[in-house]
Order: sequence, then structure tokens, then C-alpha cells
Amino acid sequence: MTFKVAPELRTSDWLNTHHPITLAELRGKVVFIEVFQMLCPGCVSHGLPQAQKVAQTFSRDDVVVLGLHTVFEHHAAQGTREALAAFLHEYKLTFPVAIDAPSKNKAIPQTMELYQMRGTPTTIILDRHGQIRKHKFGREEDMIIGAEVMALLREPYLPEGQSLADSDPAKGCTDEGCPVPNP
Amino acid sequence: MTFKVAPELRTSDWLNTHHPITLAELRGKVVFIEVFQMLCPGCVSHGLPQAQKVAQTFSRDDVVVLGLHTVFEHHAAQGTREALAAFLHEYKLTFPVAIDAPSKNKAIPQTMELYQMRGTPTTIILDRHGQIRKHKFGREEDMIIGAEVMALLREPYLPEGQSLADSDPAKGCTDEGCPVPNP
Amino acid sequence: MTFKVAPELRTSDWLNTHHPITLAELRGKVVFIEVFQMLCPGCVSHGLPQAQKVAQTFSRDDVVVLGLHTVFEHHAAQGTREALAAFLHEYKLTFPVAIDAPSKNKAIPQTMELYQMRGTPTTIILDRHGQIRKHKFGREEDMIIGAEVMALLREPYLPEGQSLADSDPAKGCTDEGCPVPNP
Amino acid sequence: MTFKVAPELRTSDWLNTHHPITLAELRGKVVFIEVFQMLCPGCVSHGLPQAQKVAQTFSRDDVVVLGLHTVFEHHAAQGTREALAAFLHEYKLTFPVAIDAPSKNKAIPQTMELYQMRGTPTTIILDRHGQIRKHKFGREEDMIIGAEVMALLREPYLPEGQSLADSDPAKGCTDEGCPVPNP
Repeated sequence: MTFKVAPELRTSDWLNTHHPITLAELRGKVVFIEVFQMLCPGCVSHGLPQAQKVAQTFSRDDVVVLGLHTVFEHHAAQGTREALAAFLHEYKLTFPVAIDAPSKNKAIPQTMELYQMRGTPTTIILDRHGQIRKHKFGREEDMIIGAEVMALLREPYLPEGQSLADSDPAKGCTDEGCPVPNP
Repeated sequence: MTFKVAPELRTSDWLNTHHPITLAELRGKVVFIEVFQMLCPGCVSHGLPQAQKVAQTFSRDDVVVLGLHTVFEHHAAQGTREALAAFLHEYKLTFPVAIDAPSKNKAIPQTMELYQMRGTPTTIILDRHGQIRKHKFGREEDMIIGAEVMALLREPYLPEGQSLADSDPAKGCTDEGCPVPNP
Repeated sequence: MTFKVAPELRTSDWLNTHHPITLAELRGKVVFIEVFQMLCPGCVSHGLPQAQKVAQTFSRDDVVVLGLHTVFEHHAAQGTREALAAFLHEYKLTFPVAIDAPSKNKAIPQTMELYQMRGTPTTIILDRHGQIRKHKFGREEDMIIGAEVMALLREPYLPEGQSLADSDPAKGCTDEGCPVPNP
Repeated sequence: MTFKVAPELRTSDWLNTHHPITLAELRGKVVFIEVFQMLCPGCVSHGLPQAQKVAQTFSRDDVVVLGLHTVFEHHAAQGTREALAAFLHEYKLTFPVAIDAPSKNKAIPQTMELYQMRGTPTTIILDRHGQIRKHKFGREEDMIIGAEVMALLREPYLPEGQSLADSDPAKGCTDEGCPVPNP
């Protein structure tokens, strides 16, 4: 089975980071993307607290949590950088958050369309190769998220350009946990 | 004991109502005022759901629920009518909501200063005479709110201009709530 | 309208009290009775915490909270005084709790049958005259309970043997709650 | 690093299973043991619902959930098989539950002492080799449990009697998930 490599997010701005982040630069890590709108009740009550919990449960060396603010309604209300910055401040959300780039002729912003998302909250999880391994609209249990992220962390990972045949599994693997999380 | 009659709210706009509402016109009813900001987590998770529950528990003939949006920080983010309208729509809040009139030289809006509020959420309850009977910053139990509102509903109420001496308690009480339901 | 005076509870034992309690001796107070079984999940998660909240919200001089343990299934498991005592201890329930007297030929104990209860949890509220004013099977909102108890507290109450005609409403009411608190 | 192989549970009875279960027969699976008392509020509100969630999240082929009822207080109240059976029935707990064998001279039952548990709830997780990998008294987050169980599932596992050198890791591992879950 092969999975689709996630296309880069199309963003107009970033908060909680000093520079824009590309998915390409995160290869080797699992990436958890929480897609939200600040006026979406399900995002506020469940999706964003869950993303925070992911950031607290896993090491930043292993898992990177990103937010993506996809304003597809109430643009006047939630479409400004100031509004989003205030929201992140009040809700004490500290992971990097991108603003989905608005489309010229549509309400739906560019990344939302590119990924064919159905709404917010949407949870997207990428494996160490940048492949989309989960793409779900709506609520998910914490226990399932914990298991899925860990499953991706424990997949064998070889930096690109190498093949499994190049590696020496006997060296990398131990009973304690298994293969080569951060080569 | 005497209580202070609540001064009129100083508002710049209203939502969820066809016309501005004065406290004066609500004499004879208990008034429950939920003071909030749309980016205040405690308001979103507790204060506003409680105000909705008050609106659902008591008859509109007895208790009027009002929201007051007092933007004292993040003015750019939550200061517009559009932002508030979108918020009320998404959170399905249907009671009338006033926007506290901004002050000329201060971050704190006019009603917030007039009432000397300490922050959001703040709960203010007025008796049938428009007197302030509760004024509390922070979280309150639903059971206590239920008891306090009912206690005010069951106080004897005489339209202004009449005194107790004018009334005949045996028959003087109105439909609005009040005394001797089960003699 | 007239209400039915609650018949005395038929009990085989009491906990959290030095002597058996009769409803007759509680005339003048509102009585909140939480009917439960220790192995009933809805009682443990909702009914009993609500009864505790009633006990904490209102003064003992005004409102008496009683528990009634009505074992109508799993008699071997929850039918002993020891089991109930352990349960009350672990859940830190301190209000008096009666054990519903077992029936000779039926699974359903005597008070449960006498009151024609439909199951547990059941909430029964008596007014100052000992009349049944609420009798509900299942879950109820805290705000509604708060309002209902306060409504009963604010009803005029005359010690038995007196009639309203005997009283002088301007001064006839007692300290316990009741009419004209803020004329 | 080596881990201690969990000693067999010392049990006096089992529920929700047709025959007593040994840890030895579960080699090759991850084992999640929820240690509880039916009158322990933290077990009822958090530990047991979490154990149920583990049973629902993971396949029985991979993870076996066991309960262990360790009565170390209120023996009269919760010490009978009937009481426990009624409790499991009312709370709809369907995984196998063992009763910790009582000690002759002590309140603390045998397995509880053998494992040096500090109280209830206690969560114990064994890897596919039957080794104790988690042993925690008190509350744990669902997300952490999900991650820990999955981490153990994704460890390489060789049936006993084989060594890593005997295996051919190149055959067993794929990108999708990795090594030898159920040999």
C-alpha cells in the first residue's frame, strides 16, 4: 500500500513561530495538523484541547503539532490575524498556527480545497515520510489518537535516498521499543 | 435593607432584538445579565451556557436574559458587530445581546466601568424593581443560580407608585410569580 | 389545588443519623429525598452528587436531605447494612440515609411500592407541610432543582392548627424563609 | 534493559470468563490489567471506563483487558462474588475479571501484596513477553494509555525459544506498521 504525500499547506501567514514552516522540513517527524476555525464550537471544546494534549504527550523531537486556521465562513469575524492572535493568546495555544490562504473567488480557502476537507474540526496526521495517514472530519477519541500517533512513530524510517536493504535492523532494534526513531 | 437600582446599560448596539432594550421597561421581571467577551474561555465554557439554561428554565414572562459584550481587551479581534454576530450564530445564543459602549480614552467600556466590574464572566441579577441583587465575577453553580432567581421571583412585587399599605395581600398579587401560591 | 401528604417512609434501618427520622418531625422544612441503589450508575454519577449539592446549597434549617436505599435487584450484593455503610463512606455522603424495608414476598421494598416509584434514581421533594411536590424518576437539571426547592421555601407556611385567616400576613411569617422578605 | 516478568495473578474466582485465565497463556499479546474495588470512586468514574475504552479501541487479538478486584477494605460490603457480579452487570463491564485471593491474616489480598500495589485504581500493562511495562497507581490520560499500548504492540516479538538472530527482519517489516504482531 502506498500513501499520498501531503501537499504543502498554502498559507497567508503564521503565528506562534518565527518563520513559515514547510511540511518538507518536517520529514522524519510525525506531524499532527489540527484544522479549525476560532468560532467553531467543536474545535474550541474538543479539537484544539486534543491538539494541545498531543503536544504535551509526545516529544517535539518526535511529533510536531500544527494548527491551520481555515476560515470558510464569517470571514469578517474571524478572518483577521489580530482576531486569531487574540484567540490563541486567550486559549493559551502555543503550537505554530498557519492561516489558510484565502481563495480569490471562493469562500473556501486554498488548503481546505486542496485537501478536500469537509469542515472543521479536521484532524490530519502525517507519517515520517510526509504521507497522509489520517484525515478525519469531526471528533476522535484521545485514546485512538494516542495509539495512531505512536503507531506512526514506531514505523521503521529511513532517510530518503536510502532503502531498507541499506539498513542494519539487527543493530537498530531492541526489545524496549524498536526501530530508529530519529536517525 | 435597600438595594441599588441598576443604572441603564450604556450600549453602542444590540443583537438578537429588533430594538434596544432598557432596564426600565423590564420592571416587574427578574433580569439576568451575562457579561462576557467572545474570546473569554470561562464565558464560552460556563457563563454563556448557564445564561442559556436560565433562559430555558424560566418563563420569559418571569425572567429576561440579556447578554452584555464588554470588550476590554483584543478590541481589534472581538470589537466588531460582525464578529459578535458570527459568534452568537455559531454558539446558537438567541437571547438579546448588547455591545457595551466603548470609552473614549480607556480600554474598559462604559457600562463595565459604571458597574465597576472586575472582568468576565460577570453575572448580574436584578429583582422586579430593577435593583441589583447579585453581582458576581467568575463561576457560579447552576443550583445556586436557580435558587437565587426563584427567590427573586417569589418576592412580593407591587407596581411602582403603590405601597404595601395600598395592597390587599389576600388578592393583591399578580400572575407574575409571587406570594401565596398554595395557601 | 391540594397535594398529597407523603406517607412515612417504611424503613428497616438508618445510617448517618443517631435515631430514625420521621417525615412528621420535619414539618416546617422542605425535604429532599434521593432514592437510590448503590449499584445504580445514574445514581452514583448524577443523583447522589446532586443531593449533596442540595445539602451544601441550602441551610439545614430550611432543607433536609435524606437518602433512601431501595434495593429492588441484586439483593445479595447491595442488601446489607455493611455494604451501604461502606458505600456512603467511600463516596463521602453524610446526609441521613434510610434503608427501605424489604417486602415479604416481593423484590420491591415497601416504600418503593407505597410511593409507586418507577426505579432509581427517583427524586422526591416535600413542602413544609409534608406534601409531595415533586416525584420524578431519572435525571433532573441542577438549576431546576435549585429553583424548585427555593419556590417551596418561599411559600407561606403556617404551623398546623392555624389557618391563613388566623394570620396577619404583615408579620405572621416565620424566619424560616417565606413571605415578604423585602417589602 | 530488562523488565520483570509479571508473576501469575493469585485469584479465588473469575467472572466474565468460562475458565480461569493465566498470564502465561496470553504471551504474544499485550495485557492491560485494571486493578479496582467496586466501592472506589476513582475506579468507577475513571479507571474502569478507561479499561473499557482500551477493550473497544484495540483488537482482542492484540490486547487483552483483564480486571482484578482487590478487596482490601470493606470486605463485608464488596467481598462477595454476588456483589461483584451485580456491579459488573450494572456497569456493563464485559471483560474477564478476577477476584484477588484473600490473604489469611491480612486485609490486603495476595496479588495486591505480591505486586506491591499502593491502592486502587492501579493500571498494569504487560508486553507480549509478559513483562511489566507500566505499573501506576491513580489516574492516567487516555491519550497516554493509547500511546503506551500501541508502543508495546509495535515492539518486535519473537516466540519464546527463538532469538532475534533467528529471525529475518527484512521479511517481516513493512512501511505500514512493522514487525510480526501475531506470530
